Amino acid sequence: MGEQSKEAEHSTKGAYVTGGEFTRDTNYIEDRIVADPAAARAARPEAHSPIGDPRIAGLTEGAQAWPVEPGRYRLVAARACPWAHRSIIVRRLLGLEDAISLATPGPVHDVRSWTFDLGPDGRDPVLGTERLQEHYFKRFPDYPRGITVPAIVDVPSGQVVTNNYPQITFDLSTQWRPFHRDGAPDLVPEALVEEMLPVIERIFKEVNNGVYRAGFAGSQRAYERAYERLFAALDWLEDRLAGSRYLMGPHLTEADVRLFTTLVRFDAVYHGHFKCNRNKLTEMPNLWAYARDLFQTPGFGDTVDFDQIKRHYYVVHEDVNPTQVVPAGPDLANWLSEHGRERLGGSPFGDGTPPGPVAAEERPPGANPLYDAR
Amino acid sequence: MGEQSKEAEHSTKGAYVTGGEFTRDTNYIEDRIVADPAAARAARPEAHSPIGDPRIAGLTEGAQAWPVEPGRYRLVAARACPWAHRSIIVRRLLGLEDAISLATPGPVHDVRSWTFDLGPDGRDPVLGTERLQEHYFKRFPDYPRGITVPAIVDVPSGQVVTNNYPQITFDLSTQWRPFHRDGAPDLVPEALVEEMLPVIERIFKEVNNGVYRAGFAGSQRAYERAYERLFAALDWLEDRLAGSRYLMGPHLTEADVRLFTTLVRFDAVYHGHFKCNRNKLTEMPNLWAYARDLFQTPGFGDTVDFDQIKRHYYVVHEDVNPTQVVPAGPDLANWLSEHGRERLGGSPFGDGTPPGPVAAEERPPGANPLYDAR
Repeated sequence: MGEQSKEAEHSTKGAYVTGGEFTRDTNYIEDRIVADPAAARAARPEAHSPIGDPRIAGLTEGAQAWPVEPGRYRLVAARACPWAHRSIIVRRLLGLEDAISLATPGPVHDVRSWTFDLGPDGRDPVLGTERLQEHYFKRFPDYPRGITVPAIVDVPSGQVVTNNYPQITFDLSTQWRPFHRDGAPDLVPEALVEEMLPVIERIFKEVNNGVYRAGFAGSQRAYERAYERLFAALDWLEDRLAGSRYLMGPHLTEADVRLFTTLVRFDAVYHGHFKCNRNKLTEMPNLWAYARDLFQTPGFGDTVDFDQIKRHYYVVHEDVNPTQVVPAGPDLANWLSEHGRERLGGSPFGDGTPPGPVAAEERPPGANPLYDAR
Repeated sequence: MGEQSKEAEHSTKGAYVTGGEFTRDTNYIEDRIVADPAAARAARPEAHSPIGDPRIAGLTEGAQAWPVEPGRYRLVAARACPWAHRSIIVRRLLGLEDAISLATPGPVHDVRSWTFDLGPDGRDPVLGTERLQEHYFKRFPDYPRGITVPAIVDVPSGQVVTNNYPQITFDLSTQWRPFHRDGAPDLVPEALVEEMLPVIERIFKEVNNGVYRAGFAGSQRAYERAYERLFAALDWLEDRLAGSRYLMGPHLTEADVRLFTTLVRFDAVYHGHFKCNRNKLTEMPNLWAYARDLFQTPGFGDTVDFDQIKRHYYVVHEDVNPTQVVPAGPDLANWLSEHGRERLGGSPFGDGTPPGPVAAEERPPGANPLYDAR
């Protein structure tokens, strides 16, 4: 790795390497879309949290409040990106498809921006633009940081409202509640929040970001420390999931969404490309069964595009993979195998129901064994 | 990959990339060490075979015959290199340690040559040199091709006698027979040779070399073709080993040695570094049990140095792995797990016996679960 990782240069996520260790830039546009903007503005200033916080009522310093308004905003979320993938899953679990539309940039952004290259004319059909960067510049003409996904764009003005991904999913749960579908799960149950946030924090630091710390390590020593930290956390999760169907008990929560997006990429990308290779996910029985259980649950696996995931990492990170050849493996059929987690009881949606099928126009176009019969 | 692969530039094996496909240079110094040099010189000229031939009596054009003579030759074989590893295993299975001494260059050769960097003063204690290249130049001052291992050096003159690796192991079996240990197996049984050579040829083309074809592919298309060919061959072997303890039946042969050196590197290197990732070896039940059976058989696993294997590929191939970070995984403990292949009957050494323990000075210094109790 050079002084700065490709991930930063290529504007997926602000990130840099210091003393051999990869560090994630956690400066974002911290505006919020809230149910009551006036109340948010009147509340005391909130501290920024790299994992977000579903309990906050106000804004961080300098941030603005935008009103919840169905049909006004467009979620720009590349299917390749694990940080964006969270928002695609939560939007679908909560049934917000009609309230917030979805734009999916292609997996292989260039040095300037994620691009809307999957559309027939290389433009997003609603926003009319070629590059997400244009919407950052409409908001801040000199925007100096990475052009990251997920980003929520205000369609009338074309401005990015927020790219503060850890808060975006919490706000979908807490601020958009009147627009959730019937039977939507409560992903942030009030009674569990205090217990859930430390779990989410450990998953963020050690797993979601831990794979990047290993893959972008600038030295052998930094890599080995990152590898140890990552697998220590995975061992902890393997234990935690031995007797509990989901991370926080018998029902799905936001914590499961955040872990899933790393697990579903693990064998396809992180194991080889980021050298997270003590073992594959398939070699950790509880985590692997848990990941399959989620994959087979409507709202999770049906949002996954393994082709886009692999192309993103293997093509964009030329410093790690200079040939840009994308591996053909792993075989994906085993994602559909029986997981046996029903024996632990629980019900994914609590008293609610699963979401219906993915709308045809939102189906991931690339490899996914759930759609192989297409 | 550039016009020429690192493997060629770095002189491990002559090799090049044409039309995106990796091709192995099969020009070698084809001298032979034989039991009867006069008879070899008098025999009709032999055709070169990329897999060698245990039946040949003569020499290829321009080649010379050297006499079998215990104590005269030194086998230079890097533990990292799969082509050299064969000769280390066969020498040990046949008990030729006292007849032919062993020099082990370190895993990370430089642009000029494999080097004797593992010795305390960076020189081979018997040959007195720092680089294998010196012995090639003593033989041919303008030697133009790769400085490859294995190479057999005539100790008195310091000249390389042969680096024709496919023939070297056959000649250890057929020409050095009087110096084999008591109880040495017959790795090239006359009654099986006709059947064995096509198996060895397919293993060479599709597996031994197949992993390189995938890893050094110069285009996505060449890689994908290589991946399909490799796994088609592994599926064939998986079937073949379902009902047969070894490749050629109930006893070990040369074919097993040739397959083992690729299998033992598969999950540690080829799966990630060469993108041979449809599945790990551990995910092919018969091949994985077979590989463990061999690993746990004296003469095989006790010659393996996983650290040298990993360092070689991940450090030398800067075009594939520019960071030169060496993965910490995979976990190796499972190489010692029960393989259950005894149920298929057979006896590895036929009427013979296993070799005794590895001499202390020849123990692989790096990671190997067989020696973890050291």
